[in-house]
Amino acid sequence: MSDPLDREHRSDLRVRYAETDQMGVVYHANYLVWCEIGRTDYIRALGRSYAEMEADGITLAVSEATMRFVGSARYDDPIAVYTRLTELRSRAMAFSYRIEHASAGRTLVTASTTLVALDRTGRPARLPDVVLRILRGEARDTASDGPA
Amino acid sequence: MSDPLDREHRSDLRVRYAETDQMGVVYHANYLVWCEIGRTDYIRALGRSYAEMEADGITLAVSEATMRFVGSARYDDPIAVYTRLTELRSRAMAFSYRIEHASAGRTLVTASTTLVALDRTGRPARLPDVVLRILRGEARDTASDGPA
Amino acid sequence: MSDPLDREHRSDLRVRYAETDQMGVVYHANYLVWCEIGRTDYIRALGRSYAEMEADGITLAVSEATMRFVGSARYDDPIAVYTRLTELRSRAMAFSYRIEHASAGRTLVTASTTLVALDRTGRPARLPDVVLRILRGEARDTASDGPA
Amino acid sequence: MSDPLDREHRSDLRVRYAETDQMGVVYHANYLVWCEIGRTDYIRALGRSYAEMEADGITLAVSEATMRFVGSARYDDPIAVYTRLTELRSRAMAFSYRIEHASAGRTLVTASTTLVALDRTGRPARLPDVVLRILRGEARDTASDGPA
Repeated sequence: MSDPLDREHRSDLRVRYAETDQMGVVYHANYLVWCEIGRTDYIRALGRSYAEMEADGITLAVSEATMRFVGSARYDDPIAVYTRLTELRSRAMAFSYRIEHASAGRTLVTASTTLVALDRTGRPARLPDVVLRILRGEARDTASDGPA
Repeated sequence: MSDPLDREHRSDLRVRYAETDQMGVVYHANYLVWCEIGRTDYIRALGRSYAEMEADGITLAVSEATMRFVGSARYDDPIAVYTRLTELRSRAMAFSYRIEHASAGRTLVTASTTLVALDRTGRPARLPDVVLRILRGEARDTASDGPA
Repeated sequence: MSDPLDREHRSDLRVRYAETDQMGVVYHANYLVWCEIGRTDYIRALGRSYAEMEADGITLAVSEATMRFVGSARYDDPIAVYTRLTELRSRAMAFSYRIEHASAGRTLVTASTTLVALDRTGRPARLPDVVLRILRGEARDTASDGPA
Repeated sequence: MSDPLDREHRSDLRVRYAETDQMGVVYHANYLVWCEIGRTDYIRALGRSYAEMEADGITLAVSEATMRFVGSARYDDPIAVYTRLTELRSRAMAFSYRIEHASAGRTLVTASTTLVALDRTGRPARLPDVVLRILRGEARDTASDGPA
């Protein structure tokens, strides 16, 4: 089976007017929002939505983020967010991101985030087995999957 | 007793860089955020925080908003939000706002919003008596107030 | 020729985590951002990007907005924004919006905005003829269109 | 003279409803916005506003950011942002931040950002001497300061 850590998911979006600032470029904090879009798309592509995970009582909280800004994007620019899962533990995971200007192919931002699983009370929790299996690429989640 | 509908509350803030857009002025949707700051400050000034209301199981959802944009503000400008309660019913209330450039005295935006009370399930609900009394200016909320 | 005022453009998006608030639903000001996505998509679909208009020195500033909130959307919900041009004058235009939960078909918000054209100095300006013609549906903008 | 790198500036703010997400806490990207408030307050406290710097044709672009999230804040919580200048070069500077729940004294986030000076064309530029002197704590900026 292919190593899920080799998987890279691409998300596409377009810069919103609201995301620009008076410098005429995307306000830097918005790239963190795009990273989140990248990792939720990554998880959804594996067969389980992040919204479903939250319905199971598990949330993922960002515990660390690092970002390197190397280019700038403007209003209406097409953006590609490439997301990889770089680490997976029972209670935490890490993703890396490369955000590009989709048509020019220029890298805009590289980033990484670490997330920890929390239960409904905000305490660190173990990721559900089904989520771990999915993220490891061992199984796609299906309603008929038996005990999950 | 003075009519609470005559009361006007002033909130002060400063334009954040993140609130500007590439036109070099405040992005229009942010004025709605400032209106919310205005009305929560208005309620807090009467002696009860909006956060406490939510803890009681009542949320206020915006059901209508109208805004008229007559001037523009720039990064770091000092802003004054003047808020009035214009209508109070058992399940709804309306506020009006005048947002000014605080030092120039120019009006930037006038707005009004209607809010409806919802319970934890999202159903329309009656505002707690204590909140109605406070908003009517009949009583300040105090911890020693007895059953509220 | 069909009346451009009959034209309705549909934009699709998905609710971002950043767009929710602690009530568990989309924060109300974000619908104004989605309206902007609707009208820029509307204009782009006619053959001219709003970014190109700004490059010509004309910006469109929102002068009025009214919104009616009738339903709520949650994280990851699919959203459809239906946009119509409801009025077109030489210096102003108005759009109306109906924002729906795309799969449930429930209306979430209806809204309208008026926009005025401004030149680089922030003064009211006449819309470029090419833009007026495009919005009236008389012509698609093309690079080979001759003087525009 | 005291070392400017010892200086710590405190900014105070209150969590806005718009800054929360459906987890009931502050959405993580908003802490980057608060860091910006911290460093612009830091610079303003030295006698020069960041807005004035931009009027001189110099902008500061964030080139790197690292954040560590150790606690969470809720709507209406009072927040203190403690900002330090940790490095100052002719074309770049770095700040560190400690963001606390102001009344509970709990640390919420520690962060650092590196900023580079850009001219109007977006090219790396030297910080104006007056800004370097101010940040080094050698002089307060005054209108009567002579050529700067």
